[in-house]
Amino acid sequence: MIKALIFDVFGTVVDWRTGIAQQTAAFFKRHGIRADTNSFADAWRAKYQPAMERVRSGDRGYVPLDVLHRENLEEVLAEFGIAKPIEPSELAEFSRAWEKLPPWSDSVSGLTRLKEHHAIAPCSNGSIALMTWLAKYAGLPWDAILGADIAQAYKPQPEVYLRSVSALGLAPRDVMMVAAHNRDLFAAREQGLRTGFVPRPHELGPGQTTNLAPESDWDVVAVDFNDLARHLEDRRAIKN
Amino acid sequence: MIKALIFDVFGTVVDWRTGIAQQTAAFFKRHGIRADTNSFADAWRAKYQPAMERVRSGDRGYVPLDVLHRENLEEVLAEFGIAKPIEPSELAEFSRAWEKLPPWSDSVSGLTRLKEHHAIAPCSNGSIALMTWLAKYAGLPWDAILGADIAQAYKPQPEVYLRSVSALGLAPRDVMMVAAHNRDLFAAREQGLRTGFVPRPHELGPGQTTNLAPESDWDVVAVDFNDLARHLEDRRAIKN
Repeated sequence: MIKALIFDVFGTVVDWRTGIAQQTAAFFKRHGIRADTNSFADAWRAKYQPAMERVRSGDRGYVPLDVLHRENLEEVLAEFGIAKPIEPSELAEFSRAWEKLPPWSDSVSGLTRLKEHHAIAPCSNGSIALMTWLAKYAGLPWDAILGADIAQAYKPQPEVYLRSVSALGLAPRDVMMVAAHNRDLFAAREQGLRTGFVPRPHELGPGQTTNLAPESDWDVVAVDFNDLARHLEDRRAIKN
Repeated sequence: MIKALIFDVFGTVVDWRTGIAQQTAAFFKRHGIRADTNSFADAWRAKYQPAMERVRSGDRGYVPLDVLHRENLEEVLAEFGIAKPIEPSELAEFSRAWEKLPPWSDSVSGLTRLKEHHAIAPCSNGSIALMTWLAKYAGLPWDAILGADIAQAYKPQPEVYLRSVSALGLAPRDVMMVAAHNRDLFAAREQGLRTGFVPRPHELGPGQTTNLAPESDWDVVAVDFNDLARHLEDRRAIKN
């Protein structure tokens, strides 16, 4: 019986691309910049994995994702030729765009339903701060905030999954990792967690070609979080 | 402006003595034991500070409070002359009594109201697991779980307050520590946090003589959590 569900967040729970593009549009407007906001969002996100990889490889000690987002923002602004000096306070504020992302339409209702019978928590590479303020913005009813910060490491490193599980006093088999990304689930299953795949075919925009389908026999494959809740309720009904 | 409130939990948010005594009564009944359940609860709780003190002093590395509760339970059972062997699974279950404690009557409504304008989180010596399952039992609507586990230290050690503040990306002056215990507030103020005192005159039973009144000029003194919310709303109204 699954006692807790832990979730990837960026892409799985919230639509980061739409949220970042919208906040980029407001920033561009303030500064009279003409450039494609989706391209800016994609470019900012493209720096996410390489920046974490430096931490994973041991080239750099663990720093919260907020620090990486800020550094990456400055790089992307430079790449977009935005040479105009921006006030540090405004840069800091724009960098916190990742705390203001819209949930997918089923996220809040699905999480609320899943919370009835399980503990639910993010297992994201976002920091406790980022996850907490994002949850307040998007209305995500988490029971706890797990993930990178409590492990001082970045997914898919094993300790992020294992520390998130042990922080709840549970064994890996009692916990399901839920993600829209097959890679995250392969890593979680390797550590003994159950796996739930919920595809988000528009995460990367209209031309998405990856993670459209399950790439393994995950424990549950659901079309959205409400469907995931139905799957788990059916299992409970069978066992009871 | 206060951005987050962090809370002592045992005694401040939940009535541990009533909860432990009730679960002790059920345990005693199962085993045909005749002894005073309030005395048992008090004896179990009396081992709390000395057990943490071994960790604070460096005599022992950090272990989650769940481990100390379990060890202390075995000691108290022996002291009460309960020699009868108890199954390890039942001992483990009884030890988790601290996850099933009733909130004070104002706790859930007050926290819900405070959550509207602030992040709210426990800053307890309880582990993430203990705080998460207790919140699910008692209906506490936390935004995040902070405190001992993320600092790997026990209050009143400074790092517990400082790590809880930094985990939210905030400065100490933006965060209020709320407690029914003056000692907790002295330690939090020492680290630059704001302080809110909410007395819980029945925490220790009918004969309580300590922590009945504020022992310093705390930022807010409130009669309960709803009163605390009113105080903070009044301040917001003045500043806006």
